Amino acid sequence: MAEVLTPKNEDYAQWYNDLVIKAGLAENAPVRGCMIIKPYGYTIWESMQRELDRMFKETGHVNAYFPLFIPKSFLSKEASHVEGFAKECAVVTHYRLKNNEDNTEIVVDEEARLDEELVVRPTSETVIWNTYRNWIQSYRDLPLLINQWANVVRWEMRTRLFLRTAEFLWQEGHTAHATKEEAIEETRKMINVYVDFAENFMAMPVIMGTKTESERFAGALDTYTIEALMQDGRALQCGTSHFLGQNFAKAFDVKFANKDGKEEYVWASSWGVSTRLMGALIMAHSDDNGLVLPPKLAPLQVVIVPIYKNEEQYNKISEKANAIKDNLQKRGISVKYDDRDNVKPGYKFAEYELQGVPVRIAIGPKDLEKQQVEIARRDTLQKQFCPDNQIEETIVNLLDEIQQNIYNKALQFQKDHTNYVDDYETFKQIMENDGGFVYAHWDGTKETEQLIKEETKATIRCIPENIPEEEGTCIRTGKPSKQRVLFAKAY
Amino acid sequence: MAEVLTPKNEDYAQWYNDLVIKAGLAENAPVRGCMIIKPYGYTIWESMQRELDRMFKETGHVNAYFPLFIPKSFLSKEASHVEGFAKECAVVTHYRLKNNEDNTEIVVDEEARLDEELVVRPTSETVIWNTYRNWIQSYRDLPLLINQWANVVRWEMRTRLFLRTAEFLWQEGHTAHATKEEAIEETRKMINVYVDFAENFMAMPVIMGTKTESERFAGALDTYTIEALMQDGRALQCGTSHFLGQNFAKAFDVKFANKDGKEEYVWASSWGVSTRLMGALIMAHSDDNGLVLPPKLAPLQVVIVPIYKNEEQYNKISEKANAIKDNLQKRGISVKYDDRDNVKPGYKFAEYELQGVPVRIAIGPKDLEKQQVEIARRDTLQKQFCPDNQIEETIVNLLDEIQQNIYNKALQFQKDHTNYVDDYETFKQIMENDGGFVYAHWDGTKETEQLIKEETKATIRCIPENIPEEEGTCIRTGKPSKQRVLFAKAY
Repeated sequence: MAEVLTPKNEDYAQWYNDLVIKAGLAENAPVRGCMIIKPYGYTIWESMQRELDRMFKETGHVNAYFPLFIPKSFLSKEASHVEGFAKECAVVTHYRLKNNEDNTEIVVDEEARLDEELVVRPTSETVIWNTYRNWIQSYRDLPLLINQWANVVRWEMRTRLFLRTAEFLWQEGHTAHATKEEAIEETRKMINVYVDFAENFMAMPVIMGTKTESERFAGALDTYTIEALMQDGRALQCGTSHFLGQNFAKAFDVKFANKDGKEEYVWASSWGVSTRLMGALIMAHSDDNGLVLPPKLAPLQVVIVPIYKNEEQYNKISEKANAIKDNLQKRGISVKYDDRDNVKPGYKFAEYELQGVPVRIAIGPKDLEKQQVEIARRDTLQKQFCPDNQIEETIVNLLDEIQQNIYNKALQFQKDHTNYVDDYETFKQIMENDGGFVYAHWDGTKETEQLIKEETKATIRCIPENIPEEEGTCIRTGKPSKQRVLFAKAY
Repeated sequence: MAEVLTPKNEDYAQWYNDLVIKAGLAENAPVRGCMIIKPYGYTIWESMQRELDRMFKETGHVNAYFPLFIPKSFLSKEASHVEGFAKECAVVTHYRLKNNEDNTEIVVDEEARLDEELVVRPTSETVIWNTYRNWIQSYRDLPLLINQWANVVRWEMRTRLFLRTAEFLWQEGHTAHATKEEAIEETRKMINVYVDFAENFMAMPVIMGTKTESERFAGALDTYTIEALMQDGRALQCGTSHFLGQNFAKAFDVKFANKDGKEEYVWASSWGVSTRLMGALIMAHSDDNGLVLPPKLAPLQVVIVPIYKNEEQYNKISEKANAIKDNLQKRGISVKYDDRDNVKPGYKFAEYELQGVPVRIAIGPKDLEKQQVEIARRDTLQKQFCPDNQIEETIVNLLDEIQQNIYNKALQFQKDHTNYVDDYETFKQIMENDGGFVYAHWDGTKETEQLIKEETKATIRCIPENIPEEEGTCIRTGKPSKQRVLFAKAY
């Protein structure tokens, strides 16, 4: 492990990129803007998927799969939706390649042109609501609570691994309801599932609220979001849940007969999180030594490293290590005994720190004598000796403690980088320097929102849910305001 | 449940289609040749994925994710590979749509033409081996045992739900090895994982063997296959595992330094199964009443239906039903108590038969009196009464028995429809009438294989592994042959 990461304080963007590459999480694909998720990165994504999928199913949702391709005409059916997505979509125009005339190259076969171009889904509202038309006749068919795990493509110009890529993996829930109230309740329920997941699994505090009109999802009446603060003082939008009203039902003519036999348009929600959460997870807790993973999502929770000078020592240590491994595994903890003989213990220590394994156990000859092991925790890098007969209990408690500690640390960071600001000069200074979350008054107009963005690069991340009403005046225009909103520079 | 399926013996293809649609498994998408996998179908696919994923991980594999798009030039790098896939691929040529001049329509923006067209992956060997070049330097980096779960697209002209669709879901394993022997061992190991899965989870007997040269995967030196016999006498290829030699390593220049420090090309395998397995599962066991699912893959294993005339009866039955449900769930069995009051028990019975739920428990007032329940099994449609104190044990055993019974039934069907044929007239008659598997001698040439295909529509499904060597003469040409091969008309 001769490589080290670029220090976070020196160049945050480079630190992030180094970390993603060197911890083996992802790399750039040969196709511009696309990524390859490497095995270690994918295993973390699988942990996230498993918990989220369980949470979706516990709230009554089922999975299904809708097609990758969307006919071009579908996209146009919902006016603001096409406005939002047409400018950045991959378009399939042909269905065959052929050899060129002199057989030197393979080219598109112009005879195999599609009658109607297909768009690679940037999101699936259109194709799903076109389908729901046939699935919904009566109120008895509602609610329809469906989720899909899929890849989507948005042709972004500036991309960064996990945070913004042309192709990304995500889940998208699409629900249909008989009433407006029920659809709103669902929209709120799912944003709260995301809050729960972010805070209790990713150990990442988030601010939940609604988007302003100009930041809403294309086609939504209301967009709920969770926003997390990264260590460079910028906000990352981590998940959204949209109340779509009857927009897509009207665009695709999806009606149901209510209990009185009258036809009504169906109400909708959609909600999603993506591999962007990987970026959030990486940035929320990690340090200059590498990843720091919350134990609940770490693919490997404990690693055991032997330290020995001869075969006799190795054999004794291995016997002990394997016993510890078995006992921890019985408690449902994932453990690896790393007895590779081609690298030194110090190399292994650095490697597991880079990969963010929460707990490391080291066993040397002296530890055998003293009937103890050395336990190192990744979050604080602290070490302690632990008597053999207390190992299991210690590890079980330590994993909980680490989970809690990194959450607390991130929460403290958020608090330390949150300001309530009432004058525009201070606001500008903060945004130019440390960044962070700023609660400030805003007059509620698009124009002012746009002005502030142009002047400071800060955007309204959300109109937070859990903030008291408070009379005030807009920091930019001085016009009256009834509530502070959350500003930050964002990813 | 007024609808019934078209009887299997009347029109097999229509029976299959009816079943897929009416059991809520899948339907055609608005894009030609693509499908929508409905929640019930997707839940079965999730069961299959879960078991396969476990088996892959137990054999040392990890998951990763490679991009959807493949640069056109990559496809050309392996000569036979491009030959096999260029004719049926979706081609992305543009990355933006725009409004046309008079704002009446949304059109492809010709200014957003890609420099190099992208192909939607039909399979990922090329993009993966291009990546492996950077991941492999030394023998210490080998073997690389990676799998991916993904969607792929092949622009098929004639499509059928699950069996042949333009977009389908699959897993594709791509492994890299230091030696030829190791790569072949891996290829064989994985086809045997598929055999294990097909027989022990899908309850579907298969014949394993290698493909003839003309039926091999485009780019493989050897293709192993598992072939299952469907109830209409046609064979379905259910999974393949390819020994790729050094073809892709040479095409993408992937070398490693061996223990002596010498550079060598890497050896490869790839292997995959897809949502086509859903088609196999549906066709292997189902009947004119609907699906018959093996208990090991059934999303719902037991359903409890109450039969009552008044609320008092309903309450007593519900109490008993919920107790049974709890007890069965504690044994890890998935159970639903269906107390919907808007449909009759008979409707529910038909519905669960259509959906292939392995075991149905009915409880009526008389059953309360007699301290019993009625248990019906889906595979044989037989019913029995079971004393209350034996329910759990009976159900646990019954699920095992059903799993075994449907396998035995399918195996018996396969045996009854397998012939050893030595003259071409009989061969032709069989292929014209009942079909089925035919073991016959073949002279080993492409030409004869092609002739037989043209004359009888039968193809060589595989050169089976577990068949004794036997001298003979080719059924078509009379030339010498050393082993029978497996013929069938195929999907």
